[in-house]
Amino acid sequence: MRTWMHVAIRFASPRWLRQRQDYSIKRNLERLELFIRREVLKSFRQWGSKTPGHPENFETPGVEVTTGPLGQGIANAVGLALAEKHLAARFNKPDNEIVDHYTSDVVVFWIIGDGCQMEGITNEVCSLAGHWGLGKLIAFYDDNHISIDGDTEIAFTENVDKRFEALGCHVIWVKNGNNGHDEIRKLIQCPRSEKEVEATRNNLGWPCEPFQVPEDVKSHWSRHTPEGAALEADWNAKFAAYEKKYPEEVEKLKSIISGNLPAGWEKALPTYTPESPGDATRNLSQQCLNALAKSVPGFLGGVLTLHSKTLHLKEETSAICNGIALHSPGFIPYCATFFVFTDYMRAAMRISALSEAGVIYVMTPDSIGLGEDGPTPQPIEHLSSFRAMPNIMMFRPADGNETAGAYRIARGGYTVSDNSNGNKPDVILIGTGLGIEIAAQAGEELRKEGKTVRVVSFVCWELFDEQTDAYKESVLPSDVTARVRKGKSVGVDSFGASAPAGKLYKEFGITVEAVVVAAKSLI
Amino acid sequence: MRTWMHVAIRFASPRWLRQRQDYSIKRNLERLELFIRREVLKSFRQWGSKTPGHPENFETPGVEVTTGPLGQGIANAVGLALAEKHLAARFNKPDNEIVDHYTSDVVVFWIIGDGCQMEGITNEVCSLAGHWGLGKLIAFYDDNHISIDGDTEIAFTENVDKRFEALGCHVIWVKNGNNGHDEIRKLIQCPRSEKEVEATRNNLGWPCEPFQVPEDVKSHWSRHTPEGAALEADWNAKFAAYEKKYPEEVEKLKSIISGNLPAGWEKALPTYTPESPGDATRNLSQQCLNALAKSVPGFLGGVLTLHSKTLHLKEETSAICNGIALHSPGFIPYCATFFVFTDYMRAAMRISALSEAGVIYVMTPDSIGLGEDGPTPQPIEHLSSFRAMPNIMMFRPADGNETAGAYRIARGGYTVSDNSNGNKPDVILIGTGLGIEIAAQAGEELRKEGKTVRVVSFVCWELFDEQTDAYKESVLPSDVTARVRKGKSVGVDSFGASAPAGKLYKEFGITVEAVVVAAKSLI
Repeated sequence: MRTWMHVAIRFASPRWLRQRQDYSIKRNLERLELFIRREVLKSFRQWGSKTPGHPENFETPGVEVTTGPLGQGIANAVGLALAEKHLAARFNKPDNEIVDHYTSDVVVFWIIGDGCQMEGITNEVCSLAGHWGLGKLIAFYDDNHISIDGDTEIAFTENVDKRFEALGCHVIWVKNGNNGHDEIRKLIQCPRSEKEVEATRNNLGWPCEPFQVPEDVKSHWSRHTPEGAALEADWNAKFAAYEKKYPEEVEKLKSIISGNLPAGWEKALPTYTPESPGDATRNLSQQCLNALAKSVPGFLGGVLTLHSKTLHLKEETSAICNGIALHSPGFIPYCATFFVFTDYMRAAMRISALSEAGVIYVMTPDSIGLGEDGPTPQPIEHLSSFRAMPNIMMFRPADGNETAGAYRIARGGYTVSDNSNGNKPDVILIGTGLGIEIAAQAGEELRKEGKTVRVVSFVCWELFDEQTDAYKESVLPSDVTARVRKGKSVGVDSFGASAPAGKLYKEFGITVEAVVVAAKSLI
Repeated sequence: MRTWMHVAIRFASPRWLRQRQDYSIKRNLERLELFIRREVLKSFRQWGSKTPGHPENFETPGVEVTTGPLGQGIANAVGLALAEKHLAARFNKPDNEIVDHYTSDVVVFWIIGDGCQMEGITNEVCSLAGHWGLGKLIAFYDDNHISIDGDTEIAFTENVDKRFEALGCHVIWVKNGNNGHDEIRKLIQCPRSEKEVEATRNNLGWPCEPFQVPEDVKSHWSRHTPEGAALEADWNAKFAAYEKKYPEEVEKLKSIISGNLPAGWEKALPTYTPESPGDATRNLSQQCLNALAKSVPGFLGGVLTLHSKTLHLKEETSAICNGIALHSPGFIPYCATFFVFTDYMRAAMRISALSEAGVIYVMTPDSIGLGEDGPTPQPIEHLSSFRAMPNIMMFRPADGNETAGAYRIARGGYTVSDNSNGNKPDVILIGTGLGIEIAAQAGEELRKEGKTVRVVSFVCWELFDEQTDAYKESVLPSDVTARVRKGKSVGVDSFGASAPAGKLYKEFGITVEAVVVAAKSLI
């Protein structure tokens, strides 16, 4: 087996690394206990086991992130390292560096392979890591030349060292990666892990059965336990001193560490009256984000280390957000960009959903209403495609209160207006977002003709599904089947076009008249 | 305005460039004619005009590719350059280089901006361009430091020159990009274009109205017309000689240039009988691909310059495929990889659909049937998400004949079995892919109990929608509303898990028993 290993280190201090190593080994050992119990190991890749085929943070204690498809892992790592840098900048005091390398669990060692290197997202997030100077992020690049189709030479011949130097990383080349343990240890004072298990076992002549951890290995790891415990006790004393001296900061820090939101956090959200000036929901959302940034200590996103606007975060950031969210339960990162760019973000968003990271995505614009820029940036299928993704709640609010309600997490769907006086309406018009205004106007037209009409705003389908049957029946009575959307649908099922928004709505047939005609055909 | 321009050139020959320039200017002029007609220009970004907000190949004559979101353009360029290299390697003869730089329209000049550089896909495709040695791909990098949030310094500080050198590009830095026309001309002998139009107009003190092309500019471009026409006549003579001497090759080349498939091409596709050994549809698909590669001259994909397996093409290749497909109408590229990786490919696949590029995507596996690797690589929402995307036909075949039928493009949905003897069946069981086997077994169970059951395979919903009403009614009679899938649905609406495939199907309730129970509840 040909194996080289790159070690990319940036601004790493040997003293810190040595101390860090002891602590991380202690922590790793606790986690490893799980794997040492053979009954757990024997159920590897079986239904209901704690050891699925890929590491999953929601299945296995000690697994902090679901790394997902190639490239998402290093993005997680950048997010974790960024979260640490953020906490250190925000809470450290000259006399008490409560967040630091030695004791907090945020230094990231990451193993990446050739497949990871081929992914564009790896370049995106490492470019940002270099830009932000995330000196505590250490990646081991296992350049073993193995791909699913043979040697990576068939498709991948770039100079990876030089590329990472261009991104601002400190690159160290370990020529003898297979058994140059002393060289690696000298560089980072840390035992290395292995991938490509089978080949490695053969290469090393490893005698034990799969999943067997020999006693001498266990005791080798165990010898660091007392040192790690002492470091942890030191940190606890430091935290106690910090708590006493900086009560205001510690309240916020505790909220971030625990995930407990401050009481009444949601009162910070704005409310709107019919007299409030109309505005695009992206601007209304911005008002909510600003309000939450003040009332929720762990709420962060666009304001991080980049710039103050909401709409500057790009798709690479979505993967980083998973790392931030999974760093501490009280971190609620948001990622805002153009909705159509979710086509680049989908792998990261799926990992948000799968690993239950609780990332907020703020996306705009959401329809052909984008207008003149034409079909490329006009979302068509995106709403549906995310409604099909598990663990995602897709909100499409129509106004300020619905936008604020989306952050407050309300009931998903509700009756906007109804002239049936508690009786069964002739027809229910269901809409979301911009569609609500059209539905409301169509409702007025139909009422003029003597019909009883209910208009329902269906802000979040998934959330509505979670409500009680009684509530769902109260909004959408099952014996009223005349529904524009259920019975008939007015929408777009082709790509958009370039023209002013109003013209597009008309040409694509999303009009008050079309809704009225569809409704009449059902009554 | 601060503007620098990078010019990345690889293996560019000045002689070739000079000649190339003349021809491209002639061609560009023909295209420019469209824009010079002011009635066309005045309708910029309006409904029904030939000048949408983004360039669209299906709207504007002379626009060869819809470049799509940031990063897709350079991917297109790599595809175009790769198509040229492929044609040259396949059809050029020592005595007649019918495909070459001077006369064929495949040399690619591409302008990329800072936003493009931030996209991971740009790095992916440029890494491949370097690997493949696409020396005729020339990119102008307009490093103007402008982003939507201000100077790119806020988020992008890597050394782009060094990164591109690492990818194997020849990088030339033009210090004075704003008005160093002579320097640029000397390097590539070609007039440069401009982005950031407004800023440039101000910077240059450009006096004309928007869309106005002054006569002196028009005549400046026109002076190259006769030279270009002569070059074209030369190439036509060369082609005539080639046609005479190499009749076999020219037949294939003509098919690629014209898009006319050879008569009877579809007869090459395999057919299967009940006695044929069962196999995974990905392997059956491989048999079809191999057959088509022999019968369709422009059919290409995995066999290109990489490796011979089907499943080695990765997501970056999907964007390159658009360039290949749009190079010549007879090119039918296919891209095969893991279905869940479409999360990385979605932007490119949407551009395939929008620009009607006709790329074939072969994706596997398609369900929790993947088994032990767990939820990360198990597709759940992907089938639905592509059914929601316009201009895409999503086939989910169940066996060899359905797989071959997908390549032949059949009717989308058909009756697999029916025991109602032409009467209205009690229930219709509709399935796709692996679900057909479950539906067929459930049908057998129900028939044993005396029910009349029709089993329908719904291989491609979009294609079925395009059939005549009579055909659709014959397969799915509208008065039979008892349908497992229409009336009741048996499927997965959460993420998957790690276990053997059979166990997963059972645990997620996708079983013969579940289908029987659902069917009975409808009868």
